[in-house]
Amino acid sequence: MMRRRMEQMVRETQAAICGALAPLDARPFQEDAWRHHEGGGGLSRVLQDGTVFDKAGVNVAAVEGTLHRDALAAMIAKEDLDPTSHRFSAVGLSVVVHPRSPWVPTVHCNYRYFELDDGRWWFGGGTDLTPAYVLDEDARHFHGTLKATCDRHDPAFYPRFKKWCDDYFQLPHRGEARGVGGIFFDDLRDRDSAALFAFVADCAAAFLPAYLPLVERRLSQPWGERESHWQGLRRGRYVEFNLMYDRGTRFGLRTGGRVESILMSLPLHARWEYAHEPEPGSAEARTLDVLRHPREWTVEGGGDVPAR
Amino acid sequence: MMRRRMEQMVRETQAAICGALAPLDARPFQEDAWRHHEGGGGLSRVLQDGTVFDKAGVNVAAVEGTLHRDALAAMIAKEDLDPTSHRFSAVGLSVVVHPRSPWVPTVHCNYRYFELDDGRWWFGGGTDLTPAYVLDEDARHFHGTLKATCDRHDPAFYPRFKKWCDDYFQLPHRGEARGVGGIFFDDLRDRDSAALFAFVADCAAAFLPAYLPLVERRLSQPWGERESHWQGLRRGRYVEFNLMYDRGTRFGLRTGGRVESILMSLPLHARWEYAHEPEPGSAEARTLDVLRHPREWTVEGGGDVPAR
Repeated sequence: MMRRRMEQMVRETQAAICGALAPLDARPFQEDAWRHHEGGGGLSRVLQDGTVFDKAGVNVAAVEGTLHRDALAAMIAKEDLDPTSHRFSAVGLSVVVHPRSPWVPTVHCNYRYFELDDGRWWFGGGTDLTPAYVLDEDARHFHGTLKATCDRHDPAFYPRFKKWCDDYFQLPHRGEARGVGGIFFDDLRDRDSAALFAFVADCAAAFLPAYLPLVERRLSQPWGERESHWQGLRRGRYVEFNLMYDRGTRFGLRTGGRVESILMSLPLHARWEYAHEPEPGSAEARTLDVLRHPREWTVEGGGDVPAR
Repeated sequence: MMRRRMEQMVRETQAAICGALAPLDARPFQEDAWRHHEGGGGLSRVLQDGTVFDKAGVNVAAVEGTLHRDALAAMIAKEDLDPTSHRFSAVGLSVVVHPRSPWVPTVHCNYRYFELDDGRWWFGGGTDLTPAYVLDEDARHFHGTLKATCDRHDPAFYPRFKKWCDDYFQLPHRGEARGVGGIFFDDLRDRDSAALFAFVADCAAAFLPAYLPLVERRLSQPWGERESHWQGLRRGRYVEFNLMYDRGTRFGLRTGGRVESILMSLPLHARWEYAHEPEPGSAEARTLDVLRHPREWTVEGGGDVPAR
């Protein structure tokens, strides 16, 4: 049964990710097992205020419940909605890592499987990177790893899911992307479920090779008040996106999800300054320019090539 | 013409509030005059990263534009919506003060007048207090001042607008109020516009006598890391409310308002910790209890009396 396979996969991935991140930090992950009020539950593993990570949350959930129409609408993009309520079951993995160093990017991934009581099912997910400073080498490694993973399943996947990611993680009121993107997809059910499961499991397994090298590469790079300050402002934007636009956050809060597990995505610190503008020509201004004009990262000269 | 009278009133109130706050802080207010893309404009006055205030914004706007149905729906509570677009003009005053000291509460007020091209008009507004630590004496002074102001116009106003405020500034996913409330009203057009203008102008004038004594009373009270830390967590909740639920924020961002003026309401710093719970019996736990169970502040023993 797909639910069980997915649940096993997300639990194994959770263990692998925590197992790889924990040795980097002096503080351990805290574990909270919780039950959903309608059925099922989850395991949240959070490392907070550590030496390397401000906050790292690696959560799995396998829950059941009733979906009312507006919750369904908040969740799925182009679904042919019917006006009735449905029983659903959902299995998902959710990872958000906010490192302490402004040179180490924030990363997020989420992979999920949904089933409704009328037999409909779909996969959704994605992995994306939110650096305080866009470092081209890092963005190229991250996107390159995701593209290689996608290409093993379908060469059409990466371009399609890269663009979907750029489109999704937008702050329209700012005219900025949240970060440098990655891949994002939803409502995926256009081939047999075993093939899609294999793809999703492969994406989840690509999280560590896509991200860990960036942590290792940047961890010893010193930083000062200037970089922390800019990191705080970019984390403010992260909060704006998650609270105003993120479908997963809205869906989770509406369906009685565990508030602390959903909002573990918010950074330990964030900052808002009135009318802040980075100095022209600075590293901060270059980052903002990339966030305002998404790039292609897997072609020659990636970082200077605008996305279509 | 009501628009002009309102505009003059909000400009005078802006000058009075900045004139009273500025001498308390070593840093001056920064002024930005701006134009709205469809007509009119505003003047934002912001004092940031000061000695007494983390952020104090005192903004006026008098703008015109076109309101589409969904923007109208985001703005007005129980209006009999028609499906057409309308030209509107809006005049408003918006004040948010986030002090540096955790003992000095955050305060917000907003008073506004709207006109549509079909002759409909209404007033909205309110003044409310968000302390990091609920200090009963302060909440009683604040509510008492607002009640006295309301009572001069109609003894039914304070109970009605106090309850509206408690209902409005709710974080449903947290089961908490944003603060200890104050007064809030919208769609006010149930008597002649001159009487309502007099009430609104009186409320705006009550801002300083309601709030300044709290600043003066608490300013020299020392604080440490524990209080700053709790203040950061409460400011995280302030951000959650403003980005997820505040109608003014959503309306402003949808109608092409000036992003920096709208989001000046966000605190300089905010903090999110996974699964934070204050120590039982502590001042922080008592604050949380009051935020979970709104009180009456203008009756004998206010602070222990639950609101209806």
